[in-house]
Parts: sequence; structure tokens; C-alpha cells
Amino acid sequence: MTHLTDDLNAALCAQRIETPSWGYGNSGTRFKTFAAPGAARDVYEKLDDAAEVHRLTGIAPSVALHIPWDEVDDYAALGRYARERGVGIGAINPNVFQDDVYKLGSVTSPFEDVREQAVQHLLECVEVMRQTGSRDLSLWFADGTNYAGQDDLRRRKHAMRAALKRVHDALPEDGRMLVEYKLFEPAFYYTDLFDWGAAYAHCVAIGDRAQVLVDLGHHAQGVNIEGIVAFLLDEGRLGGFHFNARRYADDDLIVGTTNPLELFSIYAELVAAGHSDDALTRATAQNVAYMIDQSHNIEPKVEAMLQSVLNCQEAYAKALLIDRGALSAAQQTGDVLAAHRALTDAFRTDVRPLLAEWRSAHGLPTDPIAAHRASGYQQTVARERGTAQGGGGYPVKDKVTAAQ
Amino acid sequence: MTHLTDDLNAALCAQRIETPSWGYGNSGTRFKTFAAPGAARDVYEKLDDAAEVHRLTGIAPSVALHIPWDEVDDYAALGRYARERGVGIGAINPNVFQDDVYKLGSVTSPFEDVREQAVQHLLECVEVMRQTGSRDLSLWFADGTNYAGQDDLRRRKHAMRAALKRVHDALPEDGRMLVEYKLFEPAFYYTDLFDWGAAYAHCVAIGDRAQVLVDLGHHAQGVNIEGIVAFLLDEGRLGGFHFNARRYADDDLIVGTTNPLELFSIYAELVAAGHSDDALTRATAQNVAYMIDQSHNIEPKVEAMLQSVLNCQEAYAKALLIDRGALSAAQQTGDVLAAHRALTDAFRTDVRPLLAEWRSAHGLPTDPIAAHRASGYQQTVARERGTAQGGGGYPVKDKVTAAQ
Amino acid sequence: MTHLTDDLNAALCAQRIETPSWGYGNSGTRFKTFAAPGAARDVYEKLDDAAEVHRLTGIAPSVALHIPWDEVDDYAALGRYARERGVGIGAINPNVFQDDVYKLGSVTSPFEDVREQAVQHLLECVEVMRQTGSRDLSLWFADGTNYAGQDDLRRRKHAMRAALKRVHDALPEDGRMLVEYKLFEPAFYYTDLFDWGAAYAHCVAIGDRAQVLVDLGHHAQGVNIEGIVAFLLDEGRLGGFHFNARRYADDDLIVGTTNPLELFSIYAELVAAGHSDDALTRATAQNVAYMIDQSHNIEPKVEAMLQSVLNCQEAYAKALLIDRGALSAAQQTGDVLAAHRALTDAFRTDVRPLLAEWRSAHGLPTDPIAAHRASGYQQTVARERGTAQGGGGYPVKDKVTAAQ
Amino acid sequence: MTHLTDDLNAALCAQRIETPSWGYGNSGTRFKTFAAPGAARDVYEKLDDAAEVHRLTGIAPSVALHIPWDEVDDYAALGRYARERGVGIGAINPNVFQDDVYKLGSVTSPFEDVREQAVQHLLECVEVMRQTGSRDLSLWFADGTNYAGQDDLRRRKHAMRAALKRVHDALPEDGRMLVEYKLFEPAFYYTDLFDWGAAYAHCVAIGDRAQVLVDLGHHAQGVNIEGIVAFLLDEGRLGGFHFNARRYADDDLIVGTTNPLELFSIYAELVAAGHSDDALTRATAQNVAYMIDQSHNIEPKVEAMLQSVLNCQEAYAKALLIDRGALSAAQQTGDVLAAHRALTDAFRTDVRPLLAEWRSAHGLPTDPIAAHRASGYQQTVARERGTAQGGGGYPVKDKVTAAQ
Repeated sequence: MTHLTDDLNAALCAQRIETPSWGYGNSGTRFKTFAAPGAARDVYEKLDDAAEVHRLTGIAPSVALHIPWDEVDDYAALGRYARERGVGIGAINPNVFQDDVYKLGSVTSPFEDVREQAVQHLLECVEVMRQTGSRDLSLWFADGTNYAGQDDLRRRKHAMRAALKRVHDALPEDGRMLVEYKLFEPAFYYTDLFDWGAAYAHCVAIGDRAQVLVDLGHHAQGVNIEGIVAFLLDEGRLGGFHFNARRYADDDLIVGTTNPLELFSIYAELVAAGHSDDALTRATAQNVAYMIDQSHNIEPKVEAMLQSVLNCQEAYAKALLIDRGALSAAQQTGDVLAAHRALTDAFRTDVRPLLAEWRSAHGLPTDPIAAHRASGYQQTVARERGTAQGGGGYPVKDKVTAAQ
Repeated sequence: MTHLTDDLNAALCAQRIETPSWGYGNSGTRFKTFAAPGAARDVYEKLDDAAEVHRLTGIAPSVALHIPWDEVDDYAALGRYARERGVGIGAINPNVFQDDVYKLGSVTSPFEDVREQAVQHLLECVEVMRQTGSRDLSLWFADGTNYAGQDDLRRRKHAMRAALKRVHDALPEDGRMLVEYKLFEPAFYYTDLFDWGAAYAHCVAIGDRAQVLVDLGHHAQGVNIEGIVAFLLDEGRLGGFHFNARRYADDDLIVGTTNPLELFSIYAELVAAGHSDDALTRATAQNVAYMIDQSHNIEPKVEAMLQSVLNCQEAYAKALLIDRGALSAAQQTGDVLAAHRALTDAFRTDVRPLLAEWRSAHGLPTDPIAAHRASGYQQTVARERGTAQGGGGYPVKDKVTAAQ
Repeated sequence: MTHLTDDLNAALCAQRIETPSWGYGNSGTRFKTFAAPGAARDVYEKLDDAAEVHRLTGIAPSVALHIPWDEVDDYAALGRYARERGVGIGAINPNVFQDDVYKLGSVTSPFEDVREQAVQHLLECVEVMRQTGSRDLSLWFADGTNYAGQDDLRRRKHAMRAALKRVHDALPEDGRMLVEYKLFEPAFYYTDLFDWGAAYAHCVAIGDRAQVLVDLGHHAQGVNIEGIVAFLLDEGRLGGFHFNARRYADDDLIVGTTNPLELFSIYAELVAAGHSDDALTRATAQNVAYMIDQSHNIEPKVEAMLQSVLNCQEAYAKALLIDRGALSAAQQTGDVLAAHRALTDAFRTDVRPLLAEWRSAHGLPTDPIAAHRASGYQQTVARERGTAQGGGGYPVKDKVTAAQ
Repeated sequence: MTHLTDDLNAALCAQRIETPSWGYGNSGTRFKTFAAPGAARDVYEKLDDAAEVHRLTGIAPSVALHIPWDEVDDYAALGRYARERGVGIGAINPNVFQDDVYKLGSVTSPFEDVREQAVQHLLECVEVMRQTGSRDLSLWFADGTNYAGQDDLRRRKHAMRAALKRVHDALPEDGRMLVEYKLFEPAFYYTDLFDWGAAYAHCVAIGDRAQVLVDLGHHAQGVNIEGIVAFLLDEGRLGGFHFNARRYADDDLIVGTTNPLELFSIYAELVAAGHSDDALTRATAQNVAYMIDQSHNIEPKVEAMLQSVLNCQEAYAKALLIDRGALSAAQQTGDVLAAHRALTDAFRTDVRPLLAEWRSAHGLPTDPIAAHRASGYQQTVARERGTAQGGGGYPVKDKVTAAQ
């Protein structure tokens, strides 16, 4: 059995998974949003839930905000609220897809006033970054078209670049922007940031503080995500992840549930890059933002998030166990199957005992899920919060100015 | 140029495309439902819009209802309302996916009371069929699971079969049930009716009045839909279509907009089967229900439906032009490219003049889109109806008891 | 740690994986067949290699033959040759895709004489079954078309059914036919047996001894294979597997290497069905033929096959560890995540120690790969056989009449 | 009906489609290469066939060579041979995937001597460019891996870049290199140049004379190819196309046969870019190399190539007919459906009469396929050349030193 060495302990202590505020509220598909008892109703309840996840796991100390879903009057107070509960504010996620004017796009809309409105919202979110001390502006655009000919693809590209450039140049000095791409949905014919290559080309053109964000659910079938990760790490342009899982489209399931070998392989690239001889690659790996982005449509929200964080921890722990000397030796001699086994032997290892040992050593419950179930947290919030009826699709919260 | 022969005229006159009531209301993605000025707010307005589409095209004489979205107290009155406007009531579509109890499934739920509630709703819809004189009960289930292990797949299969059997045996004497399948969404790991084979096996086990419904957007990438159509026609189990278009998932775009050759190829099979020597195949082809099922997220609703109907008409007209003698001769001699050209020569033909001639001959506007735009219909309904705010996802309408 | 109980021991002893003769010879892609030193040159060498795999693993006691690649004059002698080395002859795989006349299809060819030639070959293979005592005739057809219109899909369907029926009715009394389906390749527009539904419908129409064969690489992206497995088990029509792995198309990689959770989930269905209350389901599960079908393009052949067998053993062993009581309880209460964990906890378990214990108990090397590497087998065959130059694509062997 | 204006005539006269030498020889899938009567046996016969295609179409004046398949001692003589038949030598395609040493890669192999051998072959092909006066070096690499862990992805990336850089810097002054990418096959886990983004990033890093080559069959399902084309045109990095068609993987069917709307949409972007205000975009569009890359597995080779060229001509002619004023007006006002129709109205137009008129005006047969069939060319070459047996997969020709 693998035991907790100092190196493993240090590495496990260094892991960070950011949970998203929106993962604690009701969400659904276009067909139905099922209301879950106790689902968080506002940003304060979301922070409470995130704090519970961090309390039980020890590796989820920050929370991504979605503006305007999590908009408040006083971000300093919000930060204090979070810190009092042991967590902090993470990435800021603007929303330029739920206003009626964005029907044909936001920063790439055919209409100049719409484009400007979208950019202004992005700039406001930069201001929120300053107020919350966030390092990362996490940008996802629903922009695209549904029909061949609907719009001029090159015009839209120019508009995207211009908007990204304006935002980039307004970033706080130590801030950066993470540019997310997506194959499709909600645009069904063409998405302006349609793949990592498009996001990458924009980032390179815009400036050093623009990096690519990889959402595990935003690729076509058959795409090798760890290959993209390795490529971007090597180019110094991997900024972060939105972790989730999917079988077909952007299903936003719990990360690691459909192909755990894929999640492990991604972590294997990240761990390797963190030990690279190349300074840029190493620094890039060390600054990657690990964020969850899921829709918990039928699952209990807090338990689903716990499971997600634990799945990341397990994949990472396995990646730490790879015998890199054996792997490298097999690769260099072209020993295909020995190299594959050097990687997958680590994957085959059951790291649950190791992680229980690590948790014990740090005063955490050895089985966070069981501890959560035993704690009565879910029953308590269900009683206190009741069952909020969300709108369909993603929640749109009214502005909340005070915690209950 | 191809001219309107008696045969062509008769064939074009025989075409029927059913439009769906829900295609006239607001719909959206999980991210946002954009409210469209003038979008229909209730079943009466939907019938008004459907009547406009039929008035302009002449081939869309019936409207599919969705229960409970279109539920009314008096279906006889609803039928009269429709007939006064020149249209009739078509297929009845139950909804067993938007009640909170259906979170883990409807007819395949782990819970017996939920399964029973779902079956009761289906039986109520059979009663609506009697009241509206509908021939077809169109069944789509969101039932499935999101995670490996979530439920027992064979138990769910048995539950599905039992429910289908009960409904089948309750059908009106001349009624039938159309069983729709879908690869994924909203279930992301496993869908109980996951492909045509699953639907077909259930239909065969249940009875003669159960047939398969093919929705063009419900297949995995790379699947040959016309092949499925030909197979089901030959087995006497093709019941109908839900027409739409997609590039990636179930995008529910306007039919014929992403790959018009595919739509044409499907019609080519249908026209051929309609002339088959085999009586079962021929009868099956003649009784196919052609229905549109789309979400018009960014398009003007009525114009989008007009375009959809016209795209079907164009594909069908091209299929009528196939030189079946030349095609058959080339096929029989193994002349691969001549056979392909015999098919695609018809596709290459511009049938717009032919269709204009047919419309002229029947007192229809030669360009229905232009006529619609010129009519001011859209402006009128926008003024009269205003802009209704839909919920996200599919609309859930309150019960409506009287037209405005 | 999990220890070897009597039940586990009995279950592990009952596992059978059939290896394919063609997996020991050179194979390649359409671009290149790389010649591997020591790759088997004829059926005798293939049996030698298969015996080595069985000697090291204890669970691979039979070898599938491909006719005419493995054609010999005296099958009784071939059977003795195999038995002397500890293995037996398994499924018979006819080949109706490599003769020049099959350019446009075999049993579905437009040409009657070609169809008849194909059926005659299938009937000859039935005769080989009798001579070798094989239970299973394993049928894969390359038949299909490359272009829309190339051929009449319904005519081809009738031809397929007629051919299958003739072969079915000629089967030995205790024999059966396994009907394989495939999404695409080498037919690129339409494949006559295009999915499990098509194979299933033919089997049902033909007779009781026709069952469906599931090749893991023959599905479209996103298809849930364990769902198909469960469906076919429940219908009593699952006959066997061709195991392999793929990321995109029919890549024929080593089984379990791209998504081990999927292979485990398939075994989970099989183990569950083996304990079903339903006699048909139970009997069906117990008679499933587990066969490997892979192309080892860059891997050492014997080691690749060992790895494949071991991956199946590992997946099966994990499936045996599922706490079915806990799983069922969670499923029945709709506890989504507990049910998912009840399944995946077994997957997370490292069964390598358990399997080493089982091997020890049965006189097998605890690490078959290491034992193989230490044995010098590969070096020996490389020296003795040299490096045979295969043709491109699958090997076509001249008839071999005597072993070296 | 659309008539041949001076502008249309000029545009149609400017079209160029390069045919590939290898499209005239036998090719196949990994399962079988069917030998076609009269298939070209060497580069001279390939040039003869290409000349026939150009003679009948007037727009296929150049032939891409594949080295070493088309290797000769005297390229000057080969050039004369071509010119005497009315055609010229086009792009040079190195082959670094069919030598046994390339089993684990060519320029990215783990082994230094293999990498060097591959680079030397590429440099020899640069020398062939000089001798043939070719402008384009067309680079496709089979390099990649089949298993997770098999090799170090970042090391391979560095090796790829180093090789590309060496070749780039050795190019003739007016030459360029076209870097092709591919999702998968023959590498099944990871391909070193896995998508346009990877190729683009390398090109940008390497130099101005490196551009991306888009093969229509090398994308994942659902990818919008015209979007990539527009993006690369705008960045000045679109170098050329390999035209073909596919339904699922890299099927290498006749271009335009599975989704003609897609081919049209690609041409629509190219025609639009050719009129761009941006000088770089315009120049890029004007220098695009249009090349066919297909495998004619079951089709008569010359007729298949004729059909391919004509399909490109038809798509291009339709793109020329787009009412760009109407399209732009609709796009600018956000009139989704009017914009879509402005595009697709051109697609709906039957351009066969227009093209017949253009052919008449230039002394070409109005129906090139019919003319070819009437000419007896196929019968003649079948008689003269006989039926050559190709190896499986792509042909590997012995060096040919003299024409017959």
C-alpha cells in the first residue's frame, strides 16, 4: 500500500479546487429545472455551502462568482462574509448571455450598442475583480450563429478580438483573463470561440495576460484533451480548467464520472509540466486555476460538489504516484506497452487509503461524504431554506443586498 | 425546366406537414429563452399562427398539441376554433417530464406512484385523442439516468414496456402510438429509449398499433438516418417523423438547413417505399405522420415555420423527380457513380419554379415567405400580443380556458 | 484489502476469454502494416502464441479462427495440434470481404452469383464448425455502400435476411450464429448491418440460434454500450463480444485502454444478468462468448494479447466486487450518488493483489506480463520465425498444410 | 436562368483544382484493396489520366506528386512529359509513414536517427520542388501514439517544431510549406498535429512561408469547417485544401457527396475573402491551393476524379452567385432568416446550365462525364494497362524510370 511520504503530503496540501457559486443553486436542462430542497438561494447561502465543502475536504478554499447572479452592493462585506467561513472569492465570471439584447451575440453582435453594452459589463467585472481581489476574469461567450449565412464570420472575429483587447488592457496589474472556448451550444451552427485554437490565437494576439481556459465538456467527440493541455502548457497559455464530465455534449456532470482515466491523464500532464525543465511551462503549470463548472440537475448540490472535489483529488493523487523514471525510460526506448503500464499502474492504484491518511494527518474527516451525510447539513438547509423554484436553465438571481 | 405534370401535381397535393403548437411560442436553450414579440401565448394563438402557415403553403393542415401546455376544458370547442381557421388537430403529445416528481424518470421511475402518475397522464392523453379525433399519440420520454449505477437498466426496461403496453391497449380503435427514441438529453448517461432499435423492440413486443417515430436530431453523429427509415419502412414499423435539423446534438433548428441532401435522401426512401411492390411497406409509407418539432430560439416563429414547411416541400419535390428507372438500372448493374448521379441529379434540380407553378395552380402565393412578410402578420401579432416572457427551456403554459 | 473467497475463486475460475488467431499476425492500417519480428506466419504459430497466452493467464483456453486465413486441409489434425498445446478451437469467422468479387458487397451484392458465392463460403464455414466442434459461427459483413443512391437499401436488406436464414438453418444442432454489426467502415455511406437494432431485427426474424455480437468499437460516439448489453441480455439475444478499445472509430486497440470504466460497466451488467431471476436472461448471460478482436499494429503481439486478457480479468474481478445489496438499496430509494458510488467503489478497488492471489492458488505466474518478458518467448519466436512481411491491411495467408 | 456574364466567365476561368497522382491508382481500406481494371500503374500513367481530366474539364491543370510513390530519376523529363499532355506538376507530398522505421513516428519518433531520416526525406522533397518548379510542399504526418503514456507529448511537440523549422528554412525562395493536421488515424490515441490550432501554432512559430492545409475529412464530428477556413483566411494562414468527403471518419470519398451545402459554404467564405478589404486576407484567398485527396476504392478512377472536379466547380459557381449585397444587408440588420436565404438561394440554384454554357464557350464538352464515357478512355486503359494488383492500403510503387 502506498503511504504518505513528505513529498506526497506536500503535493496533496498544495492542491486547490475552486467551486462555483452557481453549482449550489438549482440548475436544469432546457426541459426542466427540478427544484432541490435546500438549494442555495443567494450568494451568501452559496458561500455557506462552499465553506462546508472546504471544511470537509480542505482543498476547496475559494469560490467563483457569477455576475450578475452573485452581484452585491458591497463586495468588501461579501469578502469578509466568505473569510469568516474559511473561504475566499475566486474567479469572476461575467454573464453576457442572459440579457434580451444578446439574442444575436454580445461582443460579436451585429449591433454596435449591444457590443458596447457587453464590453461595459466585462469592464464592470474587472472592477469587481479589484474589489474582491480576484486574480482571474473567466470569460465564456455564448456568441455565435445558428444558420449558415446568418452573420459574417470574419466581422465577428474582429469584434471578438477588439472586445478581448479592451478588457485585457483594463485588467488589474496582477490579473489575467481566461478565455473559454466551446464547440457548440447555445450557438448551433458556429460559435465565435469554437475551439482552443481560436481562443489561443486571440490570446496570443491580445497580450501576455490572456490565457486559455479548458472546459472538459466543450470539445467534439474523440478529441484528446490531455493533448491540448500539454500543447497549451508548452506554449505558456494554459490558464485554467472548468472541470466536469460528459458523455455526449456539454452535459456538465460530476467530473470524473464518465471516464476517470481521462481526468487522470490530464492531471498526469499537469504534474509532469510542474516538473518541466522549461521555466515557462513550469510556471504555467503552477498557475493553473482549477475550477469546477457543473450543473447538478438531479443530485444533492453539496454532496455533488464534495464528490467532484474528491474525484479531482483522487485523480491528482494517482498522477503523483506515476513512476516518472520508469515512464521516461520506457518512452525513450519505444517500449509502447511498458510506457502505457507505467502510466496506468498509477491509475490502477487505489488511493483512497492514502487520502484517508492525508486527511487524518490534517484533521479532516477521513470520509468527507460520510461525514457530510452524518452531519445533517443537507437536512438543516432543506429546513431553513425550503425549496426555491428556479427558472428553467441557469438561475437568474435578483440582486441580493443582505444575508439572512 | 421541370413542369408540373398531372402526376407531380397529384403528388404535391398529397403532401402533408404537421406543425407543432409549441413551435409558435417562446423556446430557448438552458441558458436563456429570448422573448419574441408576438410569440403565441396560448393554444388559440398557436392555432392562429398555424392557420397562417397553412394559408400560405397549403400543405400544413394540422397542428400537434402538447398536453398540458395546450390543455383546455373543451376540446370540441378547440377543434371548432381550429376548423374555422382552416386547420385541424393532429397528434397528441403527452408531457411526462416537467412535473417535479419526474426528476428520476416518469414511466421508468424507481417509485411506483410516480410511474402510475405518468401512465395516468398518458391515458388522459388517450382520452384527449378521442375528444379531438386524433389518430396519433406521440410519445417522447425524458426518462433515463445521469450516472453509471444510478438505476437498474433492466428494471427500467421492464417498466417502460409495461407502461407502453397499458397505453397501447387503451388506444382508440383506429389510433396508434408513435414511440420516439433519443440518444441523450436530458438524460446524460443512459436514455431508456436510446435508439430506434430499442423503440422498435418495444413496439414489436407491444402490438400492431405501436410504431417508431424518427426525430432527425436524436441520433449519434455519423448515423445514416435514411437507412433507419428504409429499415423501418420495410418492417412496417415507421410511424412518423419529427423534422428538424442539427449539426451536433438535438439542436432543433429549421429542418433542411444543415444538410439538405440528407433530408432529400430521406424523402427519396419514402417516395420509393410508397411505390413498393410490398403491400406492408407501401401502406406504411402512406401512413407516415410528417411532423415538425423545432425550437425557434432566435427566429421569428411563423416565418421559421413557413421556412420549415417549404424546405420539406422542396425536398419532397426533388425526390419526386428522381428518374427511378435510371436509378434502378444503374443499381442493378453495379454502376456506382451513375446510380449516385441518378439520385443527386434530382437533388441538383432547382424546384422553386415548379413549386411556384404548383402554388399558382392552387391559388397560393408563389412565394409564401414574401407574402408573409408583405402581409404584416408578424407586426400585427407583435402589436396585439406584445412580448410574452417565457420561462427558460420549453414553455409551461397555465391552463387557458378562453381565447382573447 | 479484498481476499480470495470461495465465491470469488469460483467466479474467477469460470471466466473465459477467447483470443483471435489474427491478433498474433501482422496487421495494420490502410497506410502501412509494420512487420513485427516473430509475428505468427500461419495458423500453427498462432495456436502456439495463443497457448502461451493461456499458459500464463489460465483463462484464454480457446482460439477463434478466420477462414480462409486459417484454412487447413485437416481440421481434426489442427484440433489435435491445439489440444496438445492446451488450447482448443473456438468461433469460426468466415471472410466474405477480401475476394475481388465482393467489391460491391457479398451476401447483399447486386449480383446474384456473388451473393451465392458468399453464402457458399458461409456454408463451408458451417462445415468447418462441424469438423472443429465449434459452437459459434461469428459473422461480420463489410457489406454496404459508399454513396447515396449507390444501391437499393431495402433490396440489400432482403438479401441479407435471406442469406442469414439459409446459414441459420444449416447450423449444427447445438451451434449458433453471432451476427455482428458496425456503424461504418469499410462501407462509408451505409452499412447493411449498421447497428445492434438491425442485427437484432434480423436475428428475431431468422430463428432462435441467431444472436447479436457486440464489438466494442462498432458504435457511434456517445452510444452507451452497457445499455445495449443490458437490453440484449433481457431479450435473450446477446451472443457474444468482440472486445477491443477505441477513441474515435474502430481503432481495434487493446481492450480497456481508453475507458476502463466502460469495460467495467459492461461486465457489471453481465455479472448482474448472471444472477437474474429471469431464466432467459440468466441463461443468455451464461452463454455469452467473450472474444478479443484487435489489431496490434505497433505492439508486440503476444504481450498485447496478454494485456488484453488481463484487462478483461481485472474488469470482471471488479464487477464481482460490487456490493449488489447496497447498489440495489440505493437504486430503489433513488439515492443517485450513493448508487453511483456503490458501483464505482468496486471500480476504484485495486484488484491486482486479489488476482495475484488467485493466480498463485492455481499455479499461474502472479505477474503474467513479467513472466512473459522473463521467459524469452518473444526473442525466441523472433529468431525462429524472422520478420514476415504482411500485406497491407489484414493479413491474407496462403493456405498452410503443415506446421514447421 | 442565370447566364454567363463576363464576371462569371472570368471567375470560372480562374478556378484551379489540382488532382493527386495517387487518386488514379488502386487504393483501399485496411480490409482490402480492390484492383480496378486500367488503374494507373506508375506516375506516367497517372499523368495521362490527369491530363484526361483536365482535357474534359479545363480546370485541373496540375498534378500533385507523392514521393517516393512517384519518384523518378529525371524530374525535368517528367515535367516535359506532363506539359506535352497539357498539365503541370503541382504540390510535392513527402511520405514519412511507410518505411518500417516510422512505426513509432517520423519527425517525432523517440529515436534520433529516425527523426533525422525523416527530415532528410523532407529536404529531398524540397529538392524535388526545385527540380519540378513546385510552389508547395504539402506535409502530412502520421505521427502520433496509440496509448496513453506511450510517449512524451511535449517532447514530440518540440521535435515536430524543430523538423518543420529546418524544412521551412530550406524552402525555395518562392516556395511554401502547407502543414496538414488530422484528428486521428493512423494514430489512435494522440496525433502530433491533431487539429488546425496545433498546425497554426507551429506555422506562426516557424515563419511566414508556413501555412495550414485543411483536409475536409480530418475533423471531429460537428466541427464547422467553414469557420476554420474563415479564421485562417483572416489570419493569413490558410495555405490550401485537400478536398474529399466523409460521413464519419476520414472516408476519402468524392468531395461534395455527403453534404454539398458544406462544400458550398466553404467556397462562400473563399469567394468573400477574395473580395475582402483586408489585403492580407485577399492575398491569402488568392493563393489558396485547391487539391483533391481521395481514395477511390470502388469507383472508376478517372470518372471519380472528373466527378470530384465538377463538384468543386459547381460549389464554386454557386458561391459566385451569392447576392452579397443582400446577404450583407440582412446580416447587418440581424435578419437571421433573410441572411440565411441570401446564402442558400445561391445554393438552391441549378448551375448546370450555366456551367454547360461556360464549357461551350471554351471548347469543352458540355457534359464531361458523358464525354468521358463516350470516349472509350476507360476501356482503352483497361485493355492497355490490365488490372494491376495493388498492395493493401495506399500504393507503394517501385521506382519507375521510363514511361511505356
